[in-house]
Amino acid sequence: MPTYTAPIQDMNFVLHEVLKVSESNIPGYDELESDLTNAVLEEAGKIASDVLAPLNAVGDTEGCRLENGVVYTPTGFKEAFEQLKEGGWTALDCDPEYGGQGMPYILGTAVGEIFVSSNMAFNMYAGLTHGAYSAIHAHGTDEQKQTYLPKMVSCDWTGTMNLTEPHCGTDLGLMRTKAEPQDDGSYKITGQKIFISAGDHDMSENIIHLVLAKIPGGPEGVKGISLFIVPKFIVNEDGSLGDRNSLSVGKIEEKMGIHGNSTCVMDYDGATGYLLGDMHKGMRAMFTMMNEARLGVGLQGYAQAAVAYENALAYAKDRLQGRDVTGTKNPDGPADPLIVHPDIRRNLMDQKSFVEGARAFVLWGSSLIDQGHKLNDKDAEGLVSLMIPVIKGFLTDKGFENAVNAQQVYGGHGYIEEWGMSQFARDARITMIYEGANGVQALDLVGRKLATDGGKHVMAFFEMVKAFLKENAEHPALKDDFIPQLKQASKDLQAAGMFFMQNGMKNPNDALSGSYDFMHMFGHVCLGLMWARMAKAAHDALEGGASNKEFYTAKIATGRYYMARQLPATRLHLARIETGGDPVMALDAEEF
Amino acid sequence: MPTYTAPIQDMNFVLHEVLKVSESNIPGYDELESDLTNAVLEEAGKIASDVLAPLNAVGDTEGCRLENGVVYTPTGFKEAFEQLKEGGWTALDCDPEYGGQGMPYILGTAVGEIFVSSNMAFNMYAGLTHGAYSAIHAHGTDEQKQTYLPKMVSCDWTGTMNLTEPHCGTDLGLMRTKAEPQDDGSYKITGQKIFISAGDHDMSENIIHLVLAKIPGGPEGVKGISLFIVPKFIVNEDGSLGDRNSLSVGKIEEKMGIHGNSTCVMDYDGATGYLLGDMHKGMRAMFTMMNEARLGVGLQGYAQAAVAYENALAYAKDRLQGRDVTGTKNPDGPADPLIVHPDIRRNLMDQKSFVEGARAFVLWGSSLIDQGHKLNDKDAEGLVSLMIPVIKGFLTDKGFENAVNAQQVYGGHGYIEEWGMSQFARDARITMIYEGANGVQALDLVGRKLATDGGKHVMAFFEMVKAFLKENAEHPALKDDFIPQLKQASKDLQAAGMFFMQNGMKNPNDALSGSYDFMHMFGHVCLGLMWARMAKAAHDALEGGASNKEFYTAKIATGRYYMARQLPATRLHLARIETGGDPVMALDAEEF
Repeated sequence: MPTYTAPIQDMNFVLHEVLKVSESNIPGYDELESDLTNAVLEEAGKIASDVLAPLNAVGDTEGCRLENGVVYTPTGFKEAFEQLKEGGWTALDCDPEYGGQGMPYILGTAVGEIFVSSNMAFNMYAGLTHGAYSAIHAHGTDEQKQTYLPKMVSCDWTGTMNLTEPHCGTDLGLMRTKAEPQDDGSYKITGQKIFISAGDHDMSENIIHLVLAKIPGGPEGVKGISLFIVPKFIVNEDGSLGDRNSLSVGKIEEKMGIHGNSTCVMDYDGATGYLLGDMHKGMRAMFTMMNEARLGVGLQGYAQAAVAYENALAYAKDRLQGRDVTGTKNPDGPADPLIVHPDIRRNLMDQKSFVEGARAFVLWGSSLIDQGHKLNDKDAEGLVSLMIPVIKGFLTDKGFENAVNAQQVYGGHGYIEEWGMSQFARDARITMIYEGANGVQALDLVGRKLATDGGKHVMAFFEMVKAFLKENAEHPALKDDFIPQLKQASKDLQAAGMFFMQNGMKNPNDALSGSYDFMHMFGHVCLGLMWARMAKAAHDALEGGASNKEFYTAKIATGRYYMARQLPATRLHLARIETGGDPVMALDAEEF
Repeated sequence: MPTYTAPIQDMNFVLHEVLKVSESNIPGYDELESDLTNAVLEEAGKIASDVLAPLNAVGDTEGCRLENGVVYTPTGFKEAFEQLKEGGWTALDCDPEYGGQGMPYILGTAVGEIFVSSNMAFNMYAGLTHGAYSAIHAHGTDEQKQTYLPKMVSCDWTGTMNLTEPHCGTDLGLMRTKAEPQDDGSYKITGQKIFISAGDHDMSENIIHLVLAKIPGGPEGVKGISLFIVPKFIVNEDGSLGDRNSLSVGKIEEKMGIHGNSTCVMDYDGATGYLLGDMHKGMRAMFTMMNEARLGVGLQGYAQAAVAYENALAYAKDRLQGRDVTGTKNPDGPADPLIVHPDIRRNLMDQKSFVEGARAFVLWGSSLIDQGHKLNDKDAEGLVSLMIPVIKGFLTDKGFENAVNAQQVYGGHGYIEEWGMSQFARDARITMIYEGANGVQALDLVGRKLATDGGKHVMAFFEMVKAFLKENAEHPALKDDFIPQLKQASKDLQAAGMFFMQNGMKNPNDALSGSYDFMHMFGHVCLGLMWARMAKAAHDALEGGASNKEFYTAKIATGRYYMARQLPATRLHLARIETGGDPVMALDAEEF
């Protein structure tokens, strides 16, 4: 059975030594002294290790069940949810006006990794609620906010997002769910929604569904979509719960993973709904939450790899099998531990260098989100919006890949459910799909984000990398093993961007055929940059006489590994991109 | 629910136009005229589509169950197994002396792909039996052969392989199962074996377990391991079944996939066993079957990708979502089919170019096995032995990767078990692990096979590629899009081999740290060679005025895609290899 220990030292390193959060001018960051972050992360880590991680396999094995229209969550989930609520964890980065603790988003992200690593399916109940909270917070009327937000901050009520229908996922313009206006200003919502995470369950008094639907007579396609608040129980004027709304669970989906989360088919049968935000502007309302939602999924991807790595590492140190070819390491035992073998090392270093790089990338992204929100900094917002498809697409692809790699360390035991490594891979798999499948992320990056504001943000990204390279060209820890590698990778990325500009206008397929490779290149450059910054911080700490030398030297060695063995992937991606669309589009559909 | 149609046209193309089997001097190949192969493959395809494929999901959902010591297979398996037996499919390439049909191994391989694609878990019952058959055929006494083989050829009795124990998988020297000699020449076998595929079930009258065990007093480690025949029911002298042997099923493992196969913990409690082959030479006896067993697993890997691709392609043509950016393709429909989108194309072309290349590679490997066996051709045997870890390791890694890619085409539906795409990925996952985890394949390739017979076989491989390149340097279909790419990839592979030679002697970790990358490079070069040969054959067919033009032009276009977008991966692998062992081994175990 896997265990989980939160990577607090590593998180503190990123927060305080790389990002130097408490020195930032972002409002609220001055509070983020290491005493505080340490206390919060320690406490989250305790719940994660003691309460959530042991329930991860329970959730996977039992799953959720639907009986007479009622959804039951796995044994222990309800009690754990109460604990989460009582500890105030669901309110951490919410608005104090509605009962939140008002902490910066970045701290919520760090805590989020801990909860997601220990039990991804469980954490989705609160995660979806946070998404719905954000939507109402951004677009609700004062009355709507007063009615729903305090209960959602505390998770007495939870939330959901209803977008997908059987015949449309990415292409929401095909949506059929309709919302008919009523005399009292409310709407009657009718239609079927599928893949609704946390769609129904027994852990909260009420469930606030946010539902996309079309008001008859509105514009065609995505321009005629509106967003509605559709509560499971209608809320009376005094805040008490009234009638059961006309909505029901059609079924719980049988999935590859995240069995602990109830993924429901939701049937709306003239259910009462309330317009949230402007009429026909539902897509825009959803888009305002998209950066956070997609960053959250990228986080899920690497967080599964993180816990899988932690367990694979422990197994590799413990399991005795074969001998070190360069000389026995465990002469008193019947064999040496797996970790002596170079190919096991390669696998572990791939995982370690990815997980730590991804963690820094996501925390950096979170700080940009805070910077955008709290300082109304449009450049920060533009930069993070550019990188969001990379955070989502690259980190989930690599998160799954590395969870699979971790499983491989266990040999045959990795395939047996009892050992728990299969679950990490199966759970991680969904992150490549939901919240926009990764091919859609690549399309968003190349087809939209590169050109946003006349390409201003991608240019700013390259300028930032260039400035870093220049500033650190002669840095003793960086000049040989980080700077040349990052420079080459960044050059490759620019060359790819140039190729798109020169060819994509004539033939969009020349750009879009390379979009997936571009997303991965971009991810490598971002992780390369993170590793260079981390190596620099580690070097500074060693220069400053830090007591914990091993931590910092290991950090530099892990960074070197990434730069030497992962970053050169940009060359391959560039080579693929530069073949253009011809090889990809050569066959007619009938010729396949 | 997925469907399956056997890729008969593609198989015939490889057999008759690329490998030109019926023109070969390998005994038995003269029978392989296209009328015969076509009839056999058609018939196999019918059973696969009508009987086996519909049971694939049943096996996954129901799994096997153990009740009062008896293992029950999923609904319908027993009847399907009878059909397989009645059709003589289990006897296809077996020795006529024992009731087999004596067809070449290559034909068994082609039929094998069809059965494995349609239902991998089901096919393992016959597959394991075939492995045990081969071991007894190669190492049994005449009496043992007469006793067991006819019943195993017909699959009235099935077989298993018992190697792994809880504390040892790769490192069999740690084995604890013991075999105590009895006065009558038999042995009493005692110990626990795990991960025993088809370990027990209700589809055959008897199960012939092949069990590795140590005879007390023998040499330490792997040199003291012997192989035993341990039947579930003791066979009387007249061939009838006698007493139940002292062995039992401890439990059925809960696995990530292949639920339709009963993976058992087997407890041997003084069970009667008979020495197979020489005392203490059990490992050698197992090794003689290893090429076929590992080729069979490589086949499983790409066969899962093949059926996954077939379904993903159908879905991509059928599912309407979004519009072609270069102009609407389905103006009368609400949206265009997925296949218009360049990134979906990229994904499908990745799958198609892998599956078809892998098919040719495995059939070529099978022809070398036939050549080795039937002509006692040591060069052919040496060449295929060199490539076996590549066939196993590369094709299963890529097979899983492409099954996951196929799942991705379905978006959210890919994650729902009902659609069946998750099962292909989960089933394929085991192929990277069993029959020697892929890291062990890489070690076998770099640590053993490269140096076999003084490096003779790897040099022969390079000579063969060189000769092909020279012969076809000016070939109109190859000179631009195949020859330069293959030359570069082959050069990269040689450079990697050179790096190992120059550095691996001083420090084995410099070679072993790059072993996994080398295995993948080698796989790419082999598929590159296959694609060049296929393009040439397709060109010849077009020149010869073939009626089915689309098939051949699509073949060339798919090959071009592989050469342009997959083969350049060798550059990245070489770059990684040339970093040597330092980045990989930089950390002490405690520093992780």
